[in-house]
Amino acid sequence: MIRFFVAPSDISRGLVKLSAEDSVHIRSLRLRPSELFTVCDGQGSDHICRLCERSDADVSGKGAVGGKSSGSSKSPTEGYKSRISIAEILDAFPSRGEPSVSCRVFLVFTGGDRLDYSVQKSVELGAVEIVLFPSKRCEDVPRDIVKKIARLQRIALEAAKQCGRGIVPMVTVAGWFEEAVSQALQSDLPLFLYEGEEVLHLKKALESHYKAQRYNDLEPGFPGPGSSVSIVTGPAGGFEPSEAELAASSGMVTVTLGARTLRCETAPVVALASVMFFTDNL
Amino acid sequence: MIRFFVAPSDISRGLVKLSAEDSVHIRSLRLRPSELFTVCDGQGSDHICRLCERSDADVSGKGAVGGKSSGSSKSPTEGYKSRISIAEILDAFPSRGEPSVSCRVFLVFTGGDRLDYSVQKSVELGAVEIVLFPSKRCEDVPRDIVKKIARLQRIALEAAKQCGRGIVPMVTVAGWFEEAVSQALQSDLPLFLYEGEEVLHLKKALESHYKAQRYNDLEPGFPGPGSSVSIVTGPAGGFEPSEAELAASSGMVTVTLGARTLRCETAPVVALASVMFFTDNL
Repeated sequence: MIRFFVAPSDISRGLVKLSAEDSVHIRSLRLRPSELFTVCDGQGSDHICRLCERSDADVSGKGAVGGKSSGSSKSPTEGYKSRISIAEILDAFPSRGEPSVSCRVFLVFTGGDRLDYSVQKSVELGAVEIVLFPSKRCEDVPRDIVKKIARLQRIALEAAKQCGRGIVPMVTVAGWFEEAVSQALQSDLPLFLYEGEEVLHLKKALESHYKAQRYNDLEPGFPGPGSSVSIVTGPAGGFEPSEAELAASSGMVTVTLGARTLRCETAPVVALASVMFFTDNL
Repeated sequence: MIRFFVAPSDISRGLVKLSAEDSVHIRSLRLRPSELFTVCDGQGSDHICRLCERSDADVSGKGAVGGKSSGSSKSPTEGYKSRISIAEILDAFPSRGEPSVSCRVFLVFTGGDRLDYSVQKSVELGAVEIVLFPSKRCEDVPRDIVKKIARLQRIALEAAKQCGRGIVPMVTVAGWFEEAVSQALQSDLPLFLYEGEEVLHLKKALESHYKAQRYNDLEPGFPGPGSSVSIVTGPAGGFEPSEAELAASSGMVTVTLGARTLRCETAPVVALASVMFFTDNL
């Protein structure tokens, strides 16, 4: 079922106001009033909707939307611009696409379309936030970061619509490596993917963490780990040993993804898929 | 460490003959004789090598390679073309990049660069073979399949070199859907990813299979499942119900990857990552 995101303020009294862009999309799809679609409030609630009948003439503010007659002063959608589509809510329930674990993915700035790929796949796999940051072997910090983030946020939105997420994950920036580590440490399980690590595999780290979590569940009042995970991954050349040391000494859990050297755009996706698989979110 | 693949026949008496293409690559890297690299025979064995000194003059068949003097009739590499690099084997051991489980990935023909992506990531994740096949909602069977396969095989080779595989996975074609299912059924665990499946998650299927395997291990002589897995994934629009029914009635294990609808190029990668994670190959 086709899916749109709106702001919570665009939902009221059983109706949804879609954005101008989504309205254009709806018109291009030639949806009939009997056809249903999903509108998500971006806060984890899905609404099954049906398009209200509307006028395509531009009679802004004159109540043309919501009834065929532009003279209908009792139209429930009176006052909306006519080019904005209005939908009637038939049912609402929590979004099925949100995982039970809150995962943040930290990606080093890279060139080409590799960030596009990592962001798109991270959203599909259920990441709650994607944080970009520089590192010593970082090849390409874009000059216009605002433009870059806007582009990646757009990719995140499209991926969230396509795969059925209940939120649109934010794409944000940490200004330097230490800041990224500091943010990652706010998670219950802060994972640092490092190809120099040879002992601790991701699976063992997850097993240890969730075993401890179960143990702590038995002891009320004991501050146990919860269910938020951060995944910090490096650039094409990997992290420098000094960066790995800083991360480990700060409290990050350094892990390996095994003997094969995964590309910088593959590693975060594989790690995130593994976390979702392990926590029964796949 | 940089990595090359050669045919087993190019390895003899402690020396390796590299291809003309790899020799050009080596020259462009300006490797010094002290620098080591890996040569893999494509059958699971890695060889740590050092470049022999060589002449760049074209004196084919006159024994110029392997010693600075083109007149050295005792050169161990006598007879090789001078533009072909020769390397001395210092050590050999089984490739670390091969997983313990043999996974074949079945992909429906799709347009754009989505097949490139799925093939590259499947090789990184340890697939042993990638099989392309058509399905009812298949959008794009290339006119020149030979050219398409050659291109994807090239992508598989580059990915195998980059990530440290011990083999170069083959990219092959099954001419029709039923043939793909028939090939997949040769695996111990033939998985069919279907978005219409709502009950059996991939994790449960893997747990059931490997639990049965452990059980059978206890009873020698009882033909138990081994460790080969096939992953059959569909096109952008998914499989048609009739295809899913045929697969299930043939003996495929139909599974879901959860509530989020993964793109057709993401699903096989996530399923393969999950199998590798589950079987301790990540």
